[in-house]
Amino acid sequence: MSVTAYEKELLDMLKKISHYEQAVNVMYWDMRTGAPKKGEEYRSEAIGQLSADVFQMRTSKRMKELLDALSAQKETLPPDTQKAVEEAKKDYELNSKIPEDEFKEYTTLTSKAESVWEKAKKASDFSLFAPYLEKIIEFKKRFITYWGYEGHPYNALLDFYEPGMTVETLDALFSELRESIVPLVQKIADSRKKPDTHFVQEHFPKEKQRELCHFFLKELGYDFEAGRLDETVHPFQITISPGDARVTTAYNESDFRSALFGTIHECGHAIYEQNIDEALSGTNLSEGASMGIHESQSLFYENFIGRHQSFWKRYFLKLKEANPEQFKGISAEAFYRAVNESKPSFIRIDADELTYPLHIMIRYEIEKAIFSGDVSVEDLPKMWNEKYEAYLGITPPDDAKGILQDVHWSGGDFGYFPSYALGYMYAAQLKSKMLEDLPEFDRLIESGDFQPIRKWLTERVHVHGKRKKPLEIMKAATGEELNVGYLIRYLEEKYTKLYL
Amino acid sequence: MSVTAYEKELLDMLKKISHYEQAVNVMYWDMRTGAPKKGEEYRSEAIGQLSADVFQMRTSKRMKELLDALSAQKETLPPDTQKAVEEAKKDYELNSKIPEDEFKEYTTLTSKAESVWEKAKKASDFSLFAPYLEKIIEFKKRFITYWGYEGHPYNALLDFYEPGMTVETLDALFSELRESIVPLVQKIADSRKKPDTHFVQEHFPKEKQRELCHFFLKELGYDFEAGRLDETVHPFQITISPGDARVTTAYNESDFRSALFGTIHECGHAIYEQNIDEALSGTNLSEGASMGIHESQSLFYENFIGRHQSFWKRYFLKLKEANPEQFKGISAEAFYRAVNESKPSFIRIDADELTYPLHIMIRYEIEKAIFSGDVSVEDLPKMWNEKYEAYLGITPPDDAKGILQDVHWSGGDFGYFPSYALGYMYAAQLKSKMLEDLPEFDRLIESGDFQPIRKWLTERVHVHGKRKKPLEIMKAATGEELNVGYLIRYLEEKYTKLYL
Repeated sequence: MSVTAYEKELLDMLKKISHYEQAVNVMYWDMRTGAPKKGEEYRSEAIGQLSADVFQMRTSKRMKELLDALSAQKETLPPDTQKAVEEAKKDYELNSKIPEDEFKEYTTLTSKAESVWEKAKKASDFSLFAPYLEKIIEFKKRFITYWGYEGHPYNALLDFYEPGMTVETLDALFSELRESIVPLVQKIADSRKKPDTHFVQEHFPKEKQRELCHFFLKELGYDFEAGRLDETVHPFQITISPGDARVTTAYNESDFRSALFGTIHECGHAIYEQNIDEALSGTNLSEGASMGIHESQSLFYENFIGRHQSFWKRYFLKLKEANPEQFKGISAEAFYRAVNESKPSFIRIDADELTYPLHIMIRYEIEKAIFSGDVSVEDLPKMWNEKYEAYLGITPPDDAKGILQDVHWSGGDFGYFPSYALGYMYAAQLKSKMLEDLPEFDRLIESGDFQPIRKWLTERVHVHGKRKKPLEIMKAATGEELNVGYLIRYLEEKYTKLYL
Repeated sequence: MSVTAYEKELLDMLKKISHYEQAVNVMYWDMRTGAPKKGEEYRSEAIGQLSADVFQMRTSKRMKELLDALSAQKETLPPDTQKAVEEAKKDYELNSKIPEDEFKEYTTLTSKAESVWEKAKKASDFSLFAPYLEKIIEFKKRFITYWGYEGHPYNALLDFYEPGMTVETLDALFSELRESIVPLVQKIADSRKKPDTHFVQEHFPKEKQRELCHFFLKELGYDFEAGRLDETVHPFQITISPGDARVTTAYNESDFRSALFGTIHECGHAIYEQNIDEALSGTNLSEGASMGIHESQSLFYENFIGRHQSFWKRYFLKLKEANPEQFKGISAEAFYRAVNESKPSFIRIDADELTYPLHIMIRYEIEKAIFSGDVSVEDLPKMWNEKYEAYLGITPPDDAKGILQDVHWSGGDFGYFPSYALGYMYAAQLKSKMLEDLPEFDRLIESGDFQPIRKWLTERVHVHGKRKKPLEIMKAATGEELNVGYLIRYLEEKYTKLYL
């Protein structure tokens, strides 16, 4: 067979995989947005079947043959195909190194573990979840030896979500960040300049919230012809296929912030997905570069736009018109201060932007300890609580508000949490560079003209899809390596102004 | 391999097919209920891919080996497996007899033909659609020779939707039906006792209609834990999987009848699907026995319950409360008469229950003529219009209101129309038998107690799924062969009372 014939076969296979993934994504989205209860079991089975078929295609003998043949003549291929081959190869190796039986056992374990975790969280009893966590960690440790790694074993997991990221890099970034944030959090705790936040927990009818969420999505440039907004228990963004990047949100009638900022956050993810180069559609490059880069886009929209003072100068009246009673006597400035309140809290997903990175660092350090064998599962709650005390000055009252709060470990997603903090660093660095090109940034936001901002991000980040690695994107977009200084400066400036 | 091993492998394969069908069904439902426009092309491709995979599984060499092995030892199999083997074999033979290339060409042709038909209908110009129709008919004629048939070639197509049905049977049934209906329609046209219908076309806000549709679905016993109601351009019922039988409806704000009776109609289909024996789940028997039997259930709900005088004795007030202005001064009796208005009309789907079978007979006779070679495509509009004049006393003013009104032919669905009329005959015969067991039928409806009616239908029809052939179901449920007399009697009694 000629190289061109091999290339065509690979691209056809990747396209077929993308069709299967579309089916899986629609089934998942539907299950979350209102599929009837009595079909749940069959739905899980169908998702399991099609996911297994995708796994099989990705690790098939034919896939290996194609990848070997194409890798041998890589330089004759178009650049996008070269990248697609690299990606598919990485994928093949990650998956095919695990014996099929073990992978099946692991999949069954994690799918059970999620419901065990749910129960344990409800009962606020870590000991219920511990045996499952122990087994998941054992599997993961074995997988790491199959995959191989350089330096710290945890690097194998980091690379999974953030290609190229290592413990060595993260340790340096996080320690710098911690050294600035922890004292700042302390100073804020001691400050007497506290915002008035009583009004955020008035009653806000769901219908009004829904209208506002639609409004803000449109304002920010979310394309409703290539997506839709629905309601779910937990908000998420899901890409069904090219031209179909959906957003969901959760409405809390006694706190408008969760739906509002949740929607703006998911909007950032979706705008990323809606602006990936169409030429990549149907290939394995038609997705975000990494979890961290994805998070940089959602956090950019949520924090740098949605929590910006200029944003509320423009839009507070809109919010007030929709809820005149609830916001009676509140000024745009007071509102801005209230939605930027910072204080230590137990739950990561409710944390403000200043304390949020500390929640991530705690998880990072614990995961690192798990995989270097420095801590046993039974000691984890103690370690968790001690770190909350050390970094945030608070001790979780129980496991539900402590170590059981996040779903990730039940699915074996170790190495995922750092992406949240990395995304934040990427976002701050991008914003700093953006200000050089768009010095009128604040004015653009105040005038509701988001197009230049979106265009800047699209050209430097979105359009590339998975063509480039995260750090390549950052280097090309900002001209330098990842630098946590931008995030530190942003937080110090903003929170000093607000509180000190 | 042992018989048991073969059996297991077949059942696993059928289950896998059902998972793929679930994926296709969710993707289709989603496309109709609000998937974003820009993802449409990818959606069609994914549906095409998974449908092709289903086709391949159904016609695979392994499928044939399994079916041959199991057929050879049929009597040792459990009864349900015997039926499943029979069904899968029929399926295999229908599909595998068509050369793959020809089938692909045909699929491409029909998917193009639908949009050509749409344009032709919009332009009301049959000549635009004629070349496509001609080719589709050529394919279908060739397929018939591949499949083989006894008697009339059209029998091969009838059997597809209504196993066991033949031209010979239908000719007899339809001529008897026509001989009673045509004079009755004429008498009604001459009658001076006409209902007042001015109020049916008031303005009815969509939101109120939606609430009422939910209300009636619940009242009639539709299980919302095993389904949901959504809005689409054309109403339909779709079964996603066991435990998930969905209904859609179309709201017309200037005529409440379409959503109301459309929903009750689809409710009948859905209640059928919701009550198929769970033991059949995941097999090829977990669906309705035939198109006609399915239609018998939807028509039973729509006409024998939804258009029953007792039904509106109970529910008219409910409707009036929701729309007090629109129904001002209207009595339950006047309402009942208005929603049972009968008069000749051009469009099948808007036809009343008395004239409806005539629309079907016209299509049946035309299709029969097409496949016996008695008419050319270019002469079809003339034939169509002449038959409308002969049976209904009206001549369609143009092609859009005549021969171009239905989508079926563009998809090659010849032989489908008779199922609508057969469903009607089945329903009337079932109802007549039901009255022996439930002589209090009218009172049950007036008291909103639909459970005994539902139970009766479930035990005799729903539960069996595809275990039995249509005529076996009728025989077992009513103790006799299909008898059009019940429908004739029902129509004569009802419409004589209303009009004469």
